[in-house]
Amino acid sequence: MLAIDALRERVISELGGDLLVDDHAAYARDDGALGPFPPGLVVRPREAREVRAIVDLCRALRVPLSPRGAGTGTVGGCLADHGGLVLDLAGMDRILEIDERSLLATVEPGVITARLQAAVEARGLFYPPDPASLKKCSLGGNVATNAGGPRACKYGVTGAFVLGLEVVSGAGEAMTLGHRSIKGVTGYNLVGLLVGSEGTLAVSTACTLRLLPRPSAAFTLLASFEGELAACDAVQRCLLSGLQPAALELADRTCAKVLVESGELAVPVPSDARALLWLELDGDEAGLDAAIRRAGAICREAGALAVELAGDADTRDRLWEVRRALSHTLRARWPKKVSEDVAVPIGRLAELAEAARASGERHRLDTASFGHAGDGNLHVNFLYDPASAADVEARVERAVAELFEATVALGGTLSGEHGIGIAKRPYMPLEQPNEVRALQLALKRSWDPAGILNPGKIFP
Amino acid sequence: MLAIDALRERVISELGGDLLVDDHAAYARDDGALGPFPPGLVVRPREAREVRAIVDLCRALRVPLSPRGAGTGTVGGCLADHGGLVLDLAGMDRILEIDERSLLATVEPGVITARLQAAVEARGLFYPPDPASLKKCSLGGNVATNAGGPRACKYGVTGAFVLGLEVVSGAGEAMTLGHRSIKGVTGYNLVGLLVGSEGTLAVSTACTLRLLPRPSAAFTLLASFEGELAACDAVQRCLLSGLQPAALELADRTCAKVLVESGELAVPVPSDARALLWLELDGDEAGLDAAIRRAGAICREAGALAVELAGDADTRDRLWEVRRALSHTLRARWPKKVSEDVAVPIGRLAELAEAARASGERHRLDTASFGHAGDGNLHVNFLYDPASAADVEARVERAVAELFEATVALGGTLSGEHGIGIAKRPYMPLEQPNEVRALQLALKRSWDPAGILNPGKIFP
Repeated sequence: MLAIDALRERVISELGGDLLVDDHAAYARDDGALGPFPPGLVVRPREAREVRAIVDLCRALRVPLSPRGAGTGTVGGCLADHGGLVLDLAGMDRILEIDERSLLATVEPGVITARLQAAVEARGLFYPPDPASLKKCSLGGNVATNAGGPRACKYGVTGAFVLGLEVVSGAGEAMTLGHRSIKGVTGYNLVGLLVGSEGTLAVSTACTLRLLPRPSAAFTLLASFEGELAACDAVQRCLLSGLQPAALELADRTCAKVLVESGELAVPVPSDARALLWLELDGDEAGLDAAIRRAGAICREAGALAVELAGDADTRDRLWEVRRALSHTLRARWPKKVSEDVAVPIGRLAELAEAARASGERHRLDTASFGHAGDGNLHVNFLYDPASAADVEARVERAVAELFEATVALGGTLSGEHGIGIAKRPYMPLEQPNEVRALQLALKRSWDPAGILNPGKIFP
Repeated sequence: MLAIDALRERVISELGGDLLVDDHAAYARDDGALGPFPPGLVVRPREAREVRAIVDLCRALRVPLSPRGAGTGTVGGCLADHGGLVLDLAGMDRILEIDERSLLATVEPGVITARLQAAVEARGLFYPPDPASLKKCSLGGNVATNAGGPRACKYGVTGAFVLGLEVVSGAGEAMTLGHRSIKGVTGYNLVGLLVGSEGTLAVSTACTLRLLPRPSAAFTLLASFEGELAACDAVQRCLLSGLQPAALELADRTCAKVLVESGELAVPVPSDARALLWLELDGDEAGLDAAIRRAGAICREAGALAVELAGDADTRDRLWEVRRALSHTLRARWPKKVSEDVAVPIGRLAELAEAARASGERHRLDTASFGHAGDGNLHVNFLYDPASAADVEARVERAVAELFEATVALGGTLSGEHGIGIAKRPYMPLEQPNEVRALQLALKRSWDPAGILNPGKIFP
């Protein structure tokens, strides 16, 4: 009998057949371009005890186990490319605790990010991390990838909010790691190690997250520029001004042009705009209106063609709608879009934007870059029609490789927030030498001696 | 020949005798109560190449190596309690780079924290972490302990500012870890693992630190209360208000009483004050005066006896002088002071303050608690005269153990920012079960297979 069939029988006999999910095809892809990788078995546990039992069974039978949150990743981190079992954590979706006095929440991994945000905002609290997929992605997946989002500019990425984790290691040990206090230096920072480890070391069954008070006010600015250089200059000036933007987002000339031409803009942007910048300020109401006017003045000093400011929720939302429209506007115009997620020191942002455009141009590909300028993190999209030429996919591959090389040469990193998964692992040696990889593989062996957790992910 | 003598000869022949420091007694203690533990050899390298050579020699000869920054720790983390070599990193004290556009600095580990702060402030930038010993402590030591300080309330502890590290692992591998970008999720968070690992995994030879723009303005508030309960209520209200204090510091009834009685107060505090609270706001000037008045109103709502506000540098400094005077005022009044560093979820702060007082009372000891209320982190001091009774040290030991038990029962942690070192390792099992310790020891073996780096630290 195959190991996967033996596993199926053991799950049914020990945990019950109702944990099995029949539709394996639904688990063969994530939101990226990889796959299909249909798993051999999909199990959907309801509680930590079952997670532990499944890890134990996979260890005993040497079956690979790929944990999956909501499947909104883009690099294949949750895909069963080695076959085996997908552990679908979407069924563990209870908000276990919201402690308003201690400003923390404890959740199961399947809780959708936006659901926690709504629940805490109803109590005057705030969970800042806001990945683009926040209405669909899960907190467990956010923790596994150390997800970012626009508000990371002021508040930091998911890892800045993870105080404690309940996990089952690859060795089958159930453990509570970290603390409920904001600070804590008791032993090694195991929580920090697990955040972003893409399900290769342990499976989390509960997360204790730090909360903040909900900001009482927010203002949004949308500025347009004649090119990326001026917009990046504005980014630099805003960051150095001490204004502490909650978000500072950039879109390049392709994005600006496509948005203007789409006719879908809810906000007038000059037709000659070749770069857009969104800035948000939030916090205490006092002084925030003066601060947003100062941000506007800074953008004009950097050469803005136009600056829109908004304090009311409707207008703010219209400004952000322009930003949110980007992805689908690009998808509507080009049949295929390969999206990378590079980050550089913020002083090198303009050079990254230029390198992205140049890598596309060299290989006759359209490029569109947008993203979290305040963190030096750009999503670079190579846009093309796969039917346009026989060699187009090969050209995309070369352009991607050149983008990564340029990023590393600028002191940057292959991934700001999406992770490595399957998609980027061939490029890891560009950034990390053998001895750094060897240490990481040694850590993996400590946590997962049988090598069952997401085997082959991250490391080439 | 003893291993330590062989090591001495090899250091002289391979690196030169001028690296040796003769005065071993100066390395036998830190700023805590432990020791003396005179090392067998003290070596003071000037560059990374020498650090690597020394690690290699210690590995070859199986001699324990204790890295030491400025020796301002309080838990014995830098002491050679197993004998062997102390690696004095104070000589590696160059600021290698301040990148104003990318808001980062790269420093050698021996750079004094205040020196980097002055250097970056002169350029309009800001390095927030501010341990009490900032004029003497080193950045390498701050990284090794993940040091905190008052400003951690708004800005986070040292770890929040460490982007990258150059290290030599216990296996003698020289590696560059992390990145120069703000965000980055390429592989495991090895930098996060090393921060706070107390020199047990690797020795850092350079640190790349994130900087912020220097806040353009600051306001300070000092409020006095009739007791800790009202002060903790004010802490809670301030944190939930959305004011984002840069610092929020508490001092309990013993502290308030001693300060008033010392006659040293540069600021009038009512003689019936039995708790003090300092709050600082910093950032953009606009609205900051309104915000500090709101903080004052919140303190009065919580029952403050008096509230002093200050916006000018001199008056602000006088308010903070009261806080800084605490440690020496207590030392002047009691011959001995055993200081702990516990942290709880912020909603449990009042209970922690009460538990601290009760643990002292039960054992007929004076207690004084003060510290970083905004992070739920209190320094609890047991105050006594060692000559007062034969059993007093035994009573202190019982009071400490009970404080730790109460802290853990409140969901707290043994150390908010000082670390475990030697002093707290017997208490580790209170907070972490065997399987969590076993995983950490496995990590240690990956990084330091010969077990030469700070052996016996952290883990009992």
